[in-house]
Amino acid sequence: MAEVLKGAPVAAKINETTAERAAALREKGVTPCIAILRVGEKPDDIFYENSAVKRADALGIKAVRVTLPVDVSEDDLIEKIKELNGDGTVHGVLMFLPLPKRMDGLRVRRTLSVDKDIDGITPGSMGGLYSGNGDGFPPCTARSCIEMIDYYGIPVSGKNAVVIGRSLVIGKPVSMMLLSKNATVTVCHTKTVDLPGIVKKAELVIAAAGRAMLVKADWLREGQTVIDVGLNVGPDGKMCGDVDFEKAKDIVDKITPPVGGVGSVTTAVLLSHVVEAAERQTNK
Amino acid sequence: MAEVLKGAPVAAKINETTAERAAALREKGVTPCIAILRVGEKPDDIFYENSAVKRADALGIKAVRVTLPVDVSEDDLIEKIKELNGDGTVHGVLMFLPLPKRMDGLRVRRTLSVDKDIDGITPGSMGGLYSGNGDGFPPCTARSCIEMIDYYGIPVSGKNAVVIGRSLVIGKPVSMMLLSKNATVTVCHTKTVDLPGIVKKAELVIAAAGRAMLVKADWLREGQTVIDVGLNVGPDGKMCGDVDFEKAKDIVDKITPPVGGVGSVTTAVLLSHVVEAAERQTNK
Repeated sequence: MAEVLKGAPVAAKINETTAERAAALREKGVTPCIAILRVGEKPDDIFYENSAVKRADALGIKAVRVTLPVDVSEDDLIEKIKELNGDGTVHGVLMFLPLPKRMDGLRVRRTLSVDKDIDGITPGSMGGLYSGNGDGFPPCTARSCIEMIDYYGIPVSGKNAVVIGRSLVIGKPVSMMLLSKNATVTVCHTKTVDLPGIVKKAELVIAAAGRAMLVKADWLREGQTVIDVGLNVGPDGKMCGDVDFEKAKDIVDKITPPVGGVGSVTTAVLLSHVVEAAERQTNK
Repeated sequence: MAEVLKGAPVAAKINETTAERAAALREKGVTPCIAILRVGEKPDDIFYENSAVKRADALGIKAVRVTLPVDVSEDDLIEKIKELNGDGTVHGVLMFLPLPKRMDGLRVRRTLSVDKDIDGITPGSMGGLYSGNGDGFPPCTARSCIEMIDYYGIPVSGKNAVVIGRSLVIGKPVSMMLLSKNATVTVCHTKTVDLPGIVKKAELVIAAAGRAMLVKADWLREGQTVIDVGLNVGPDGKMCGDVDFEKAKDIVDKITPPVGGVGSVTTAVLLSHVVEAAERQTNK
């Protein structure tokens, strides 16, 4: 039976540090502030927003909701972003994605100041992550994987890590971060041949394919750590990960659960990025 | 005995297209132009510069040499770069690296316009390569590997590619480009455990470690293609690659030679980037 790596204690530890850093900033007269920019009224966005606002409040971070109608023009959205860029009291901006399809998403994302890009959606943050030059921030979910790994003391340097998925939100950034921690990283995707064989050889498996229970128990073996980033609706209508958790947990050494795992760390990471942004902007 | 993948025909084919594209630009009244920015008098830089100027000339591309003294101040160098950014007759800028150690290299590189960054040294180009958003250019040597692979029709999609080295000049950009061509990419480096075993499983090996004859014949097997980007002085004082070419060529299917291989494609790629930059700037 695997050790189940829960997100809650990881989030709690991050939040503890965030609250301390926020307090230190407030003592300097700076109240760290996140602006949450939402276009439209998607229930998932609103749910996440409410939980982020509540958590920010508890940590001494100011949260500002900026809500635009679903039919807002691209130029008006860009104007709003520029306004937030120029607002010295706002340190980080979370913009919900994807934007409406009629918009040029890249053009909009480019507008956001890299210094306030706390979820790593700008080309500047991406270049920063890829090159290690310190610009911007990694996407929160990707960083949450790394926070889980660090908290639970999973060895990474010199280990074979297999990342399933190559999205800019998880697969690629996690790959870059594992590489900078000296893992030997293999990036797999839909065109990968013999994914089961490749997964079986890994010591660390990051499942970020977004496909319900893609990773089967017989792809896995003793000695592995599995970080499951997937959150899907399974064939039975219940939430499930990219890994067949119930069977996998009897095989591998350590595994994150589909609910209460990586996903429960992202808000903590987001708010840690807000204080980080506020610190950087204050020390400039 | 392996097929030896020579760079000359690859370069010739690229140059042919570049000359056509340069001619088409000149017909529109635009003479594609590269500025070669050199600090100091390093013989290797001057050698490459002379060869690039000569080749540019042959292809109908204007080449401007911009040479600054080795003790130039960082601010004066930055001023010069800004001048080139603003010069509408210059479409691409090649700046020799590394810069003198006293300089903040990142600050200097940041100054260069991403649109003119024909050797992929700016954060903007790096973000472009990582995210696939079309910004800037990949580093010429990295792209040369891909040009070799394309020219010789090496299958990539679904193949296991092992990249040895994670530099921003070759290892990382080649990894990104192979990933976008649907290879399953494993990035190896000095902390990789059992590099021989990992190399042996690959179908495509990119050796970019910068260590003379690191890859031994017994790491290799039949059926592999080996792209050797290394250029080192071997124990016998002769130039050699990262792969023990003489022995490897009796084992693998296809291999690039240490001299006359990938390295002989880079100038052609550089000049193709100049016409590409001129086209983009003309069609803006």
